[in-house]
Amino acid sequence: MDLNSDLGEGFGIWKLGDDNALLGIITSANVACGFHAGDPRTMRQVCEEAAKNGVRIGAQVSYRDLAGFGRRFIDVDPVELADEVLYQIGALDACARAAGTEVVYVKPHGALNNATVHHEKQAEAVVNGAKAFRDLPILGLPGSRLLEKAEAAGLRPVQEAFADRGYTPQGTLVPRSEPNALLTDSAQIIERARRLQHGEIVAVDGTVIKTRAESLCVHGDTPGAVEHARAVKEALGTVAPFA
Amino acid sequence: MDLNSDLGEGFGIWKLGDDNALLGIITSANVACGFHAGDPRTMRQVCEEAAKNGVRIGAQVSYRDLAGFGRRFIDVDPVELADEVLYQIGALDACARAAGTEVVYVKPHGALNNATVHHEKQAEAVVNGAKAFRDLPILGLPGSRLLEKAEAAGLRPVQEAFADRGYTPQGTLVPRSEPNALLTDSAQIIERARRLQHGEIVAVDGTVIKTRAESLCVHGDTPGAVEHARAVKEALGTVAPFA
Amino acid sequence: MDLNSDLGEGFGIWKLGDDNALLGIITSANVACGFHAGDPRTMRQVCEEAAKNGVRIGAQVSYRDLAGFGRRFIDVDPVELADEVLYQIGALDACARAAGTEVVYVKPHGALNNATVHHEKQAEAVVNGAKAFRDLPILGLPGSRLLEKAEAAGLRPVQEAFADRGYTPQGTLVPRSEPNALLTDSAQIIERARRLQHGEIVAVDGTVIKTRAESLCVHGDTPGAVEHARAVKEALGTVAPFA
Amino acid sequence: MDLNSDLGEGFGIWKLGDDNALLGIITSANVACGFHAGDPRTMRQVCEEAAKNGVRIGAQVSYRDLAGFGRRFIDVDPVELADEVLYQIGALDACARAAGTEVVYVKPHGALNNATVHHEKQAEAVVNGAKAFRDLPILGLPGSRLLEKAEAAGLRPVQEAFADRGYTPQGTLVPRSEPNALLTDSAQIIERARRLQHGEIVAVDGTVIKTRAESLCVHGDTPGAVEHARAVKEALGTVAPFA
Repeated sequence: MDLNSDLGEGFGIWKLGDDNALLGIITSANVACGFHAGDPRTMRQVCEEAAKNGVRIGAQVSYRDLAGFGRRFIDVDPVELADEVLYQIGALDACARAAGTEVVYVKPHGALNNATVHHEKQAEAVVNGAKAFRDLPILGLPGSRLLEKAEAAGLRPVQEAFADRGYTPQGTLVPRSEPNALLTDSAQIIERARRLQHGEIVAVDGTVIKTRAESLCVHGDTPGAVEHARAVKEALGTVAPFA
Repeated sequence: MDLNSDLGEGFGIWKLGDDNALLGIITSANVACGFHAGDPRTMRQVCEEAAKNGVRIGAQVSYRDLAGFGRRFIDVDPVELADEVLYQIGALDACARAAGTEVVYVKPHGALNNATVHHEKQAEAVVNGAKAFRDLPILGLPGSRLLEKAEAAGLRPVQEAFADRGYTPQGTLVPRSEPNALLTDSAQIIERARRLQHGEIVAVDGTVIKTRAESLCVHGDTPGAVEHARAVKEALGTVAPFA
Repeated sequence: MDLNSDLGEGFGIWKLGDDNALLGIITSANVACGFHAGDPRTMRQVCEEAAKNGVRIGAQVSYRDLAGFGRRFIDVDPVELADEVLYQIGALDACARAAGTEVVYVKPHGALNNATVHHEKQAEAVVNGAKAFRDLPILGLPGSRLLEKAEAAGLRPVQEAFADRGYTPQGTLVPRSEPNALLTDSAQIIERARRLQHGEIVAVDGTVIKTRAESLCVHGDTPGAVEHARAVKEALGTVAPFA
Repeated sequence: MDLNSDLGEGFGIWKLGDDNALLGIITSANVACGFHAGDPRTMRQVCEEAAKNGVRIGAQVSYRDLAGFGRRFIDVDPVELADEVLYQIGALDACARAAGTEVVYVKPHGALNNATVHHEKQAEAVVNGAKAFRDLPILGLPGSRLLEKAEAAGLRPVQEAFADRGYTPQGTLVPRSEPNALLTDSAQIIERARRLQHGEIVAVDGTVIKTRAESLCVHGDTPGAVEHARAVKEALGTVAPFA
């Protein structure tokens, strides 16, 4: 199981999360590319720290929305969106290469990730933008249009699961506006990690869902997050980047 | 003599200059990278058109200043500036590669170009940012700290002359705030091009200055600019990218 | 009939439309407030020119989206949207007061105007933001949630018609993606103005729609726009601000 | 003695300092207006909390520079700068009025504050922008061009001192790049407050400087800052807004 987290999500003076602590735990860093967060200095520093820690770099591409942290759907024209994705990957890859590494996958952030579960044209746009750069794997939600389009375009789709999010019996995430959206109990989070090793996720109502997730997302921007990430890693036993 | 021009300097709905006309004339396109102008869609389109026309692409890097079109000095920390330069080159290079070409040189825009004539640390920052990407030639003003630092860092310095700017007897540009800053007379502009073939620039007071300029800059955003660019090219006889 | 137009829609170096020509024709200027277009210098200049020409000023409030010119729906939280509307009105009113006048109405721009036809919460947010400033009239589309909410909140709803847009038999605008979305023929545009004086709009299929529009919008950013605006004014005979 | 602090300096998801704690201590809140920090939601919330706490609101105007937090000099054209100042005050005043209060003074932030110590034209621009709004008092450094220009323009100049900054024997602030720039020792900070009541500041070399400061600035964004602010208030005995 790969262990990924969102990094470099500050902007200028403003910081978010404990990147350096997470880099000692995870195997894949989804680095913000300047559109919802992330400035060039932060991006390059995160890439350098990731390289030192042997953590792989993915482009956490987003809508152009610093004010909303990329958490609001924007009805961007798909042609422009594809080019925005390409721009972001290129900018991050330059930072990664300067640090002796490179961008090896793409993961949409926030509202763009949510939108591309169903929004066919934006899903296609993200895939087109990524493919215009290189044949990079796409990290996304199981059953999403995003992963469908990725596969159709010859890109490797990688299913992602979340260590600290509640799941519905249908296998989708419980919306943040509802109770049980977030797991905050360590025991539950660790249990999530254990079951994932056996291809299982337990939904909020107890239903056991089968999953083929290859990467598990942990967060670093909430109280206790780093401790949870460490516990998840321990529960998983071994972690390794997806192939 | 190489013939360069600033392209892709619109943003979103706003356009500037006649890029397509210039692409039929010039040999090197300095493409805006999103910091003073240029959005991903525009950048990619300009790269595609440049590729079709056999025009080379340079990164026209700038201060982060859409509101000021990069024309105001900003006292950016040199470490951040280097990373901003790297970010911009990477973003443009991704667009260029998607169009089957690549970024082959760097030229600072506006206030950054002016600042790096004397500002040692910012000059070094631009060079460091470029070098972190690749050993790219740097286009700049003769005698500038920028070209000095480029040479010292092992990057090829390329001197640039201007087809439509007045020169002082010392070989510097007449400031835009003074009369004679801009040549608007076709005959003068054509004469400038002719003399440059012999390594000469005639200053506003008639002094003949020796120059080793390898690239001549023409503009596309003023009335008659495209006609002037065509006349300049004709006067030069042959144009070819700098080696 | 009031005659309104969108003004001050440049940003920094980039210009759009012929504001000064329109200010000699219209009675109400919808001035961009910096979120989709408009910088403080432009805003203040437009206010000064409007004051000189006896043209009233309205706040053309928008999503925060310079890159998309406010033409893309953004799923902004309504509480934030209300505050963004308030912010924009306040900023423009300061410019207007410095010019000896003031903001006397509010008109949402682009995608925000379209969204608030149906989007209850965003419609309410615009009304709340406006009302938090002062009890300003709201300019909008007939039948929109926006005008409903304005009325419910005790703000004066002002129906707007368009001189150069095609109408469906149901009285809505033909989407820009379809043929007949724009009237470009002078005769048609003049006929539109004439019929409006009698409370009528002729739809694209010839159906005559009854309207209570009090303000007619003309545009200034297309070729021939200023001439059309003049012709519309002449056809209307007398124009006067809505009470 | 007035006690002021910089508030509302987050942006979107990013937060800075403990605004609510400071609002229970200070008498004047310098609220960020969206140019170096501050979004409309934050601005309105800070205004509401300030109103509840009986704290007065000043406009903390800045260069347009979110990426640099307004800490980098920008060579903005003075005419544009004046309009940017006007825009910011207007936007904040709308938020303040919605909260039942209003903007009652202006204080430049960061690099703009530093620049206007010597930069005549930018100092004049800030004063012009403020005066275009209303005859507001200007908070600034003793001996600055800013306060000179304010006085010349008929605005009330208010001298400010800093609780936690080192002073040179000449009465200027020790630059942040040098040792002794910041007082971090509680005893020193309290001593600073005590001496200020007698019109004295002790410089880093022990020299006693006479001052006519009417407002004392405390910070809220460093560890222990809120405790220091409380101690300063206690040491001052009584605090009250400048007249």
